[in-house]
Amino acid sequence: MKKILNNPSDLVPEMVAGMVASYPQYVRQIPETTAVVRNDKAFTGNHPAKVGVVSGGGSGHEPLHAGFVGLGMLTAAVAGQVFTSPTPDQIYAAIKAADQGQGVLLIVKNYSGDVMNFDMAKDLASIDDISVESIVVDDDVAVEDSLYTQGRRGVAGTVYVEKIVGAAAEAGADLKSLVKLGKAVIEQTKTIGVALHAATVPEVGHPGFELGPDEMEYGVGIHNEPGYKREKMVPSAQLAKELLDKIGQQYTGGLSGKKFAVLVNGFGATPLGEQFVFANDVLQQLTDAKATVAFTKVGNYVTSLDMTGLSLTLLQLTDDKWLDYLNAPAATIGWGDTRNER
Amino acid sequence: MKKILNNPSDLVPEMVAGMVASYPQYVRQIPETTAVVRNDKAFTGNHPAKVGVVSGGGSGHEPLHAGFVGLGMLTAAVAGQVFTSPTPDQIYAAIKAADQGQGVLLIVKNYSGDVMNFDMAKDLASIDDISVESIVVDDDVAVEDSLYTQGRRGVAGTVYVEKIVGAAAEAGADLKSLVKLGKAVIEQTKTIGVALHAATVPEVGHPGFELGPDEMEYGVGIHNEPGYKREKMVPSAQLAKELLDKIGQQYTGGLSGKKFAVLVNGFGATPLGEQFVFANDVLQQLTDAKATVAFTKVGNYVTSLDMTGLSLTLLQLTDDKWLDYLNAPAATIGWGDTRNER
Repeated sequence: MKKILNNPSDLVPEMVAGMVASYPQYVRQIPETTAVVRNDKAFTGNHPAKVGVVSGGGSGHEPLHAGFVGLGMLTAAVAGQVFTSPTPDQIYAAIKAADQGQGVLLIVKNYSGDVMNFDMAKDLASIDDISVESIVVDDDVAVEDSLYTQGRRGVAGTVYVEKIVGAAAEAGADLKSLVKLGKAVIEQTKTIGVALHAATVPEVGHPGFELGPDEMEYGVGIHNEPGYKREKMVPSAQLAKELLDKIGQQYTGGLSGKKFAVLVNGFGATPLGEQFVFANDVLQQLTDAKATVAFTKVGNYVTSLDMTGLSLTLLQLTDDKWLDYLNAPAATIGWGDTRNER
Repeated sequence: MKKILNNPSDLVPEMVAGMVASYPQYVRQIPETTAVVRNDKAFTGNHPAKVGVVSGGGSGHEPLHAGFVGLGMLTAAVAGQVFTSPTPDQIYAAIKAADQGQGVLLIVKNYSGDVMNFDMAKDLASIDDISVESIVVDDDVAVEDSLYTQGRRGVAGTVYVEKIVGAAAEAGADLKSLVKLGKAVIEQTKTIGVALHAATVPEVGHPGFELGPDEMEYGVGIHNEPGYKREKMVPSAQLAKELLDKIGQQYTGGLSGKKFAVLVNGFGATPLGEQFVFANDVLQQLTDAKATVAFTKVGNYVTSLDMTGLSLTLLQLTDDKWLDYLNAPAATIGWGDTRNER
C-alpha cells in the first residue's frame, strides 16, 4: 500500500483539519468532532433563519460530504472513520451547529449503519426541541440489498440531492417541503458504477477485491461492495451502452423523450480525460435515444479512496425548478463555478 | 493497462468532444481542431475588446488547460496528443479565435517542443497583424534541464499563472502589462512533485518507470521525467518538510515573514483525502516557519494521467493585487467557486 499519510488511524482528523485550514472561507470544524459547519460570511453574519441541511457518512468519498458544505448546499457535514458511519454524538453536534430555529433536514445514504446512527442523532436532537427530518438516498440501481444495505445503496447521485435540496433551503423552503422535494428527487435519481481496480482502506492495506488484468466489476459499490457481474473490459462506448440500458429500464417508458441531469463521477484514481471520453459516449447515446440533457457534471464528486472506475448517474428532471436549483449559486470546495450570470 | 477508452488514438478528440458536450456554457470546439475557445455569454455577446490569453500543451494533464478556459482565465486552449506538443496550426487557430483586436498572450509551459511550436504559431499570427507575446512557465525547481526541457520544467504552478494573468486580462490590462505581470508571477512560483507510481500513456500501455513497493520518486515531472532522488516512502509530515525546505531555499531569506499562495496538486490517482492530510502538514509547517498563507487550493489541477503522487507549489505574493486576481471571479470547468461575495 502506497499512500501519503502519517499514521493511518489519523487520516480522518488530519484530513478534516487540512480542509478547514485550506478553505476557511467555506468551513470551520465543530470543536471536538470531525464534523464541519459553514463558515462563510452569509452564514456567520446576520441572515434570515433557514432550515439546516446536514449530511455525512464514512470517510473516503471526498469531496463528499464536507466538500459540499457552504452557501447553497449543506449547512454541516459529519465525517466518520474510513467507510464507517459517523457516531450519533457527532451527527448530533452537526445538527445543533446547523440549526437556526427552522429545523434540520438530514440527508442519509442508505447504509444500515448510517441510517441507524442518523436516527439516534435525531432522537438526541428531539430532546433539544429541534425539529429534525431525514431522507434516505438509495440511487444505486445495480443491485438490491448489499453487504451493508437493505434495499439499494446510496452513491454518487447524493451530490445532486444535496445540491437541489441545499439550494431550496437557501431559497427559504420549509422543512416539510424540503422532505417532499428530496424524496421526489431521490425517486428520479439512478446510478450504476464500474470498477477496474478496488479501493484500499489504509488500515487494511490491500485492495478490497482482486480483478484480473482485463476484468471490470459492473455495479460495484463505493465501499468495494460487489456488483452484478464481472467481465472482460469493453470499450467506453460499449460500457456507456450497458449502463444506459440498465438505467433506462428503471424509468417507465425508457429514456426517450425525457429530460435529464447527468453525472459522470470518477471514483478517485481514474483520470479526468477518461471520464470525458466516457461522458462523450454517454451524451451522444442519450441524444441518439432522443433524451434531452439539461445539465452535466464530470469529475470526482463521490469517490471510493483510490478505486479506479467511475459511475454514471441520471436524474430525470420532472420539475423545471430542479434545474434552477442545480444551477443556483453555491460556494463549496467541491462544486465548481455556479455564478448566476453566464 | 486498464483504462476507460475506445481506440487509444482517439483519446484526445473524444475527450475534447466530451468537454464541450458536457460544458457548453464554458467552451466550444474550434472547428477541425482539438482546441477550445470561450463560449460564455460574456464572451460571445457584445463586450469590450480585451487581450486574449491562450495556453495549451500535450494532453493528459486535465483539467489543464481546456478546463481553465472561461471568464477570468484563459480565452482559448489547445490540446496536443498525450504528452505531445500541439501543432503550430492548431495553436494559430486558437490565437485567431482568442484575438479581439487587442493582441494575444501565450502562456507556454517550458518544454522544448511547446516553446518551438508556440513560437511558430506566433510567426503565423504576425502575418495576420495579430500582436502576440508569450511567457514561459518554468516553476519546477526540482531539477535543472530535463528529458524534454532546457532549464526548468513548467508544471502545476501554471494554473496560478493562468488565473492571475487571466483575471488581469479580464479586468482590461493591455498586452504589455500582462507580459510583465506574468513574468513577475512566474518568478515567484516554485513547485516540486513526488510520484508513488508512474503514469501510463495509453498508446504505450505500461507505466513510464517502475518504483519499488515502498519507493517514492522526488522531483518527478508531469511526463514521467525523473526527479532528484528515489527513496523509501516517508510519512506525510516528513515529505512536507522535505519539499518546503527545498522550495524555501529558492526564496532569498527562506520562507519566514513571506506571504504565499499554496497549491497542493494531485497527479490523477491520489485521493483527495490524502491531499488534504498533506495540505494539513504543509500549512502547519508554514505557520511554524512564520510564513503567511493567504490563498490555498487542494485538488487535481495539473495531472499526469494516472500517476499517483502530488506536487506542492508556493507562490510568493509580492504584490497584493495578485491575491485579488486569485480571488477574482472565474467560470471554468476546473477552477471551483469564485463568487465575489462570500
